[in-house]
Amino acid sequence: MSPTPVTTNLPTQPASYSWEATDEEVAARFDLPIESIVRFDLNTSPAPPELVGTLLAAGRFDTPLSEYPPSDYRRLVAAAAVRYGVDTDELLVGAGADEILDIVAKVVLPPGGTAVIPTPSYAMYRVLTEQRGASVVAVPRQDAEAGYAMDVDAVRAAAAGADLVWLCSPNNPTALPEPDGAIERLLDGIAVDAVGAGREPAIVVLDEAYAEFVDRTLLGLRDRFPNLVVVRTASKAYALAGLRVGFAIARPEVIARLNPFRPPGSVSTVSVTIVTEALLDSGAASANIERVRGERERLRDGLTAAGWSVGPSVTNFVLVDLGSVERAATVAQGLLSRGLVPRTFPAGHPLADHLRLTVRAPAENDRLLAAAREIEPA
Amino acid sequence: MSPTPVTTNLPTQPASYSWEATDEEVAARFDLPIESIVRFDLNTSPAPPELVGTLLAAGRFDTPLSEYPPSDYRRLVAAAAVRYGVDTDELLVGAGADEILDIVAKVVLPPGGTAVIPTPSYAMYRVLTEQRGASVVAVPRQDAEAGYAMDVDAVRAAAAGADLVWLCSPNNPTALPEPDGAIERLLDGIAVDAVGAGREPAIVVLDEAYAEFVDRTLLGLRDRFPNLVVVRTASKAYALAGLRVGFAIARPEVIARLNPFRPPGSVSTVSVTIVTEALLDSGAASANIERVRGERERLRDGLTAAGWSVGPSVTNFVLVDLGSVERAATVAQGLLSRGLVPRTFPAGHPLADHLRLTVRAPAENDRLLAAAREIEPA
Repeated sequence: MSPTPVTTNLPTQPASYSWEATDEEVAARFDLPIESIVRFDLNTSPAPPELVGTLLAAGRFDTPLSEYPPSDYRRLVAAAAVRYGVDTDELLVGAGADEILDIVAKVVLPPGGTAVIPTPSYAMYRVLTEQRGASVVAVPRQDAEAGYAMDVDAVRAAAAGADLVWLCSPNNPTALPEPDGAIERLLDGIAVDAVGAGREPAIVVLDEAYAEFVDRTLLGLRDRFPNLVVVRTASKAYALAGLRVGFAIARPEVIARLNPFRPPGSVSTVSVTIVTEALLDSGAASANIERVRGERERLRDGLTAAGWSVGPSVTNFVLVDLGSVERAATVAQGLLSRGLVPRTFPAGHPLADHLRLTVRAPAENDRLLAAAREIEPA
Repeated sequence: MSPTPVTTNLPTQPASYSWEATDEEVAARFDLPIESIVRFDLNTSPAPPELVGTLLAAGRFDTPLSEYPPSDYRRLVAAAAVRYGVDTDELLVGAGADEILDIVAKVVLPPGGTAVIPTPSYAMYRVLTEQRGASVVAVPRQDAEAGYAMDVDAVRAAAAGADLVWLCSPNNPTALPEPDGAIERLLDGIAVDAVGAGREPAIVVLDEAYAEFVDRTLLGLRDRFPNLVVVRTASKAYALAGLRVGFAIARPEVIARLNPFRPPGSVSTVSVTIVTEALLDSGAASANIERVRGERERLRDGLTAAGWSVGPSVTNFVLVDLGSVERAATVAQGLLSRGLVPRTFPAGHPLADHLRLTVRAPAENDRLLAAAREIEPA
């Protein structure tokens, strides 16, 4: 990752999300059985909690499938409040964290507004900003040796003229959290600058999608910083990405601002019930987290032994530095030809010479390790 | 409904969706067992297709619950294309029709733009318009004797300066379709005016959420009118509201404009699989439609015999004219106190003296009929 200056993009055509090839596309391109395709590109955990099978088989949900979910998601909100240690009026339910991000963008970002992103980070922050007709101020993160930490002073300076700051810790795709105290220091700085300028501070979204893997959260900061919106999800540690459930957590007055913009009932009744029970079950996530930690180190060791440069990770994915865009493309092609789908980064992306790989089930990880050993180092 | 002039609202505070009281709130307020509460306010059909139980018990979905849904919703799109008789590139999948409406608003409505609504209609059209920072031009519908038909000439005139027209046929909450040829005449007029003015015609959204109940669709018009976006849903005739699946259907070049704004994967994997199978099963909706038709006439007859003025309906709900706002409030209270939740309309709404009631299961409808007989006519 080479250092690049802070840049502001005025979108002409807003960014949109781009996916890797589908299972069917990979299977067709390389003449592989579709069952053999494994997604290493989506940071999902292939181990949903055991209670899922029981709940599905019982076929009883908070409301029948023919009815809309309860308009207040009452039981789900109550379960999340207990799990996250917050009050029920500090929570907003969304169809995945993505819908939460969309709601925040709708409320906070006016057309012509500005959002700050320490880059690289999750692609949707830019997509949602530009789709609002707002501009992205991209503040490059520090290098790999510095753990890709954000440049707190530069983010603070950019936030002084912004409506929104998108943070992600642990960060996707760099797999590491911000250093201790960095986010608090940023929030303090933004608050001081706002008072000095006589304006409201920018809203700071802190996406903690991967927080359970480090067993740490900055949720406690919301009492001191009413501009903080923490985002949580059932997609990662809970291994329930397919159910599409996410949460915003913030002070009640912030939730009250977001709430009028949530759709009438975007979360499936099946999802409401299963995620409620998963949040109430103290063991639902922990088994997966333990498994991910063990497999992650095995994967890192194995890939390193195969000659790849694998960065440290506290999450359920690893970032591999292939040294050049060409080698990254060659390795990606080698993996795809074996039915293993990596996350690639487009030309011009600061990680275009990297691949991101999800920590999956042992047998799947074994296939990845075997592939790494076979693929000729360029 | 008294005639009101065409009005334009410049939102200061955007509208937001409002629900009736939750089951828990009604139960607490009237000291009723929560199981006794029946929702007559949501236009759902309490009869999901039989295949649902089998699919849930099998617990096998297109992708496991731990994975995101396929990025192209391939099987779901293919099934919908067969069911609706369109090509796969004419379809866009959303988390319920509400997400489809949101995506259209994002793409079509600029801040400061204008959307036309023949009113009254589904509340979300105004909500989504105003949340975009755009203005609503409300064109009053004709009266009950005229079947609440839109005023084609007035809508056409308003559309000449607008970005978007929100149509709903059969219309919610008036329970009737536009008269034969009316929508085609409107589309023709908008096309002529656009050519005359040298501008693009407004996009016309035609929400056909209730189309299966009349077994008619205007989907075929999309070939002549590339500005037409038809919206369909699994929530009504398919009795699968809890799964949150809806579709936009339009010419490929329109879908290509909408597609970059859809979220990465907002529909649950469970929903993807069940709705795919429901669309492929030619009997899934028809049993429910038959049941609704029979119960609807029984409900109309019974409510009429009880002294209420019930409008004609081709949908799964009926509109009751209580003659005054006060009587509507009294009757609503009488129903609520028996655990039956009607859809009410706020003060100032053209139907504030009406209630909207969903056609539900026979035993539930029996409770509604008994309540109507008990409630003293004001």
